[in-house]
Amino acid sequence: MRHLIDWQSLSRVIWNAAVERALDYYEHAGEWTDTARGRSIGLMFFNSSLRTRTSMELAAAQLGAYSTVLTPGQETWRFAFEEGAVMDGQEAEHIREAIGVLSRYYDALGVRLFASLKSFNKDRDERLIRTIASASSVPIINLESAFYHPCQALADAAVIRRQLGDPRGKKFVLAWTYHPKALPMAVPNSAVLMAARSGMNVTVARPDDYALDYGIMQMARSYGAQVEETDNREQAFDGADIVYAKAWSGPLVYSDPEHEAARRESLRDWCITTEWMQKTREARFMHCLPVRRNVVVEDDVLDGPGAIHLEQAEFRLHAQKAILEYVWGL
Amino acid sequence: MRHLIDWQSLSRVIWNAAVERALDYYEHAGEWTDTARGRSIGLMFFNSSLRTRTSMELAAAQLGAYSTVLTPGQETWRFAFEEGAVMDGQEAEHIREAIGVLSRYYDALGVRLFASLKSFNKDRDERLIRTIASASSVPIINLESAFYHPCQALADAAVIRRQLGDPRGKKFVLAWTYHPKALPMAVPNSAVLMAARSGMNVTVARPDDYALDYGIMQMARSYGAQVEETDNREQAFDGADIVYAKAWSGPLVYSDPEHEAARRESLRDWCITTEWMQKTREARFMHCLPVRRNVVVEDDVLDGPGAIHLEQAEFRLHAQKAILEYVWGL
Amino acid sequence: MRHLIDWQSLSRVIWNAAVERALDYYEHAGEWTDTARGRSIGLMFFNSSLRTRTSMELAAAQLGAYSTVLTPGQETWRFAFEEGAVMDGQEAEHIREAIGVLSRYYDALGVRLFASLKSFNKDRDERLIRTIASASSVPIINLESAFYHPCQALADAAVIRRQLGDPRGKKFVLAWTYHPKALPMAVPNSAVLMAARSGMNVTVARPDDYALDYGIMQMARSYGAQVEETDNREQAFDGADIVYAKAWSGPLVYSDPEHEAARRESLRDWCITTEWMQKTREARFMHCLPVRRNVVVEDDVLDGPGAIHLEQAEFRLHAQKAILEYVWGL
Repeated sequence: MRHLIDWQSLSRVIWNAAVERALDYYEHAGEWTDTARGRSIGLMFFNSSLRTRTSMELAAAQLGAYSTVLTPGQETWRFAFEEGAVMDGQEAEHIREAIGVLSRYYDALGVRLFASLKSFNKDRDERLIRTIASASSVPIINLESAFYHPCQALADAAVIRRQLGDPRGKKFVLAWTYHPKALPMAVPNSAVLMAARSGMNVTVARPDDYALDYGIMQMARSYGAQVEETDNREQAFDGADIVYAKAWSGPLVYSDPEHEAARRESLRDWCITTEWMQKTREARFMHCLPVRRNVVVEDDVLDGPGAIHLEQAEFRLHAQKAILEYVWGL
Repeated sequence: MRHLIDWQSLSRVIWNAAVERALDYYEHAGEWTDTARGRSIGLMFFNSSLRTRTSMELAAAQLGAYSTVLTPGQETWRFAFEEGAVMDGQEAEHIREAIGVLSRYYDALGVRLFASLKSFNKDRDERLIRTIASASSVPIINLESAFYHPCQALADAAVIRRQLGDPRGKKFVLAWTYHPKALPMAVPNSAVLMAARSGMNVTVARPDDYALDYGIMQMARSYGAQVEETDNREQAFDGADIVYAKAWSGPLVYSDPEHEAARRESLRDWCITTEWMQKTREARFMHCLPVRRNVVVEDDVLDGPGAIHLEQAEFRLHAQKAILEYVWGL
Repeated sequence: MRHLIDWQSLSRVIWNAAVERALDYYEHAGEWTDTARGRSIGLMFFNSSLRTRTSMELAAAQLGAYSTVLTPGQETWRFAFEEGAVMDGQEAEHIREAIGVLSRYYDALGVRLFASLKSFNKDRDERLIRTIASASSVPIINLESAFYHPCQALADAAVIRRQLGDPRGKKFVLAWTYHPKALPMAVPNSAVLMAARSGMNVTVARPDDYALDYGIMQMARSYGAQVEETDNREQAFDGADIVYAKAWSGPLVYSDPEHEAARRESLRDWCITTEWMQKTREARFMHCLPVRRNVVVEDDVLDGPGAIHLEQAEFRLHAQKAILEYVWGL
């Protein structure tokens, strides 16, 4: 059975084929087929969504499949996840029953379930989405879990290929930004791995205390790419082809969340401005959205010619059609 | 690109064609086609809905199109609307990105976004829905904005035509009623313009302090119709062919909401009763719904032979099929 | 017009045909048809749902019909139900208008509306769902009302037939269990009637104070089955072919809810364990779900070979396809 929890457990051949397929779908945007007629997918959103939900619904519909959106805890009761739980509290159903049943109804399940930001091990090990996958008799598609966002990664790789052609050797800067809230690491983790697997030279520009997980960085290096980390923005932006902006909360959030919040508040100038963009090689500006204008990035950048964040979001649709094909073996 | 923000910016030819098309769809109720197959519409409800949501979903489905219902602020985060906003508060995404992305996914967007009842200029100028339209690369359909409800207006015109035949010269009374809450003016504004454009003689029966906007009244007069306002219900109901009941909060709500609320509480007898209906020429009773029984209108009227509010609601479906055809040029 | 409020008002011929049809659909699981193309159903959930909502959506989709899920009070305002209500409170629309309109849009309406647990007469008489049915011009399908859950009952009958073959003379035990919340009686009522109508020997094992309604028990007996009640679990589980576990709150909840809660807390050992299951004739374990692990039933039972609760849930899909066929006369 083909789950899509992350890309790194899948071969480079599958990854490349999926990128190509997403680009094909971009070329044929607006075409509806019956490829997946008679199939259905349940989309479970434990966290909010705008793009993922709509693009996944449309990806299914454009292939002829049926989809349902579920928001656990809002229109259903809450679910217990722990093995052996004595369920006399708020959770009315165990995820094993919920997924056991849904996977008898649907031909695939998409799941969004963000990082706890409480237990690093639980988040890094993807414990919740792996519990879901083990209870399911149909493919699980990760719609952003604790540590990974594979739908975003595929869309990103495809839009970069469309914008830059062959991305190998191009400079990809993952630029940490300030944000008023502590955010998870799924998108930056996935972006670094995506860029490295695409053969780009990767620089992570982030303040001290905001390093990404060492295991992620090592995995990125294992693809043969040049992967660096620095708190020197001058050096990072110099010659960049892609600036991929993202806020995340870093390892401190697990050990000392108050300290992390205070530290973050001192870093409000980590905002992407035209001035910073001018240090690049006319870089494209990317962001997975939602983005806070004039906090994460200035209006002038978002409204300028280098910004490709809307096309990037558009590619979610094309990428997810490729992903549905993959998990269903179409 | 064909938005439908209001009808008055569209020609009389388009209006008449749409009324005819809605009547055609009524004649062929229950027929499903593939006219809009391969198209999709995203329906954004910033405010609650029963009829609009369901009738718009079905209008799309019956034409073969795909639809998604979105409730911003409930299943998504909240959106910022202001130009140049520094987004460090509750809003996690600017409407320009949200609409920019959605209009790359969908072939049209429907938007319900009620009046603020705080800033008259902002409401009258339709600032929010116009911001949305300017960010969109696909047609926007107004599902009730600050000042207009064009889907309701078209349905109303069509059901009146079905009930009365040629409506020209018939007496249309827009009858203000008491309501425990301060309500917006989108429906009464649209109803007056619809009736005037349909060639009816229009009387707005409302207490002092509840005049509709002067600009709306002037626009209604510009269609050549006789348009009057009065606080004399005897005179208003006399000889009426249509009684269109609606509560609204009037201009006082903007300048002095406490005064408006107190004034409104003194007007509880502005309720549509059988006694009032008997002063008419066996008028049809209309209401856009939801309606509060025995507060806005008595049971006897709603359950009586003149009440056409359910058929009026049914016409929402037929009207919106005509509207989808219009915006998509089908 | 064919409503499905409960099964007992329908003939044994219809019941048997529906069970057969559900089994047919099980045999052809995964097949999508156009049987109900051009039809639509609105699904109104006044209470939460996981299985019912998803299985009903898919039942409709697999027959080619369109469905909409509505959650009154969440994405719409609240509805008044009382005849002659003066609606100046929280409810913005009367159910007569709401259903009157929706039944002009949809070809059937599904309604979930649980017991009040406040007024026994109102619950037993199914006053709310009957008010809805009387306002509707299209068939109403009960998705669990105050006293009955006919979709569950049909699924249960079909899965028992698949598991046991001819169920006549087999021993069906409805086993009361502890639960931290006061739960309604719709499922146990329906289960007893289903088992009796299927020709099984029925034993209701429940503590004093948790008797089911006398009228339900009499109705079950009227089918010619042997129907017993006991607080002796030893005797009940002995030789059982089916153990159907369910928590419910019993008649005390209406007269003295505090007393009922206290009484219930003293009954925490009414939990289905392997030890209890070993007293049966290798019984199948059934539960309508959601189920609280290690409170209502121990992990070992749910994860053991006799547990058929997931297949039972799967049959909801097959049963509801049969129900849609019935109400639409397909």
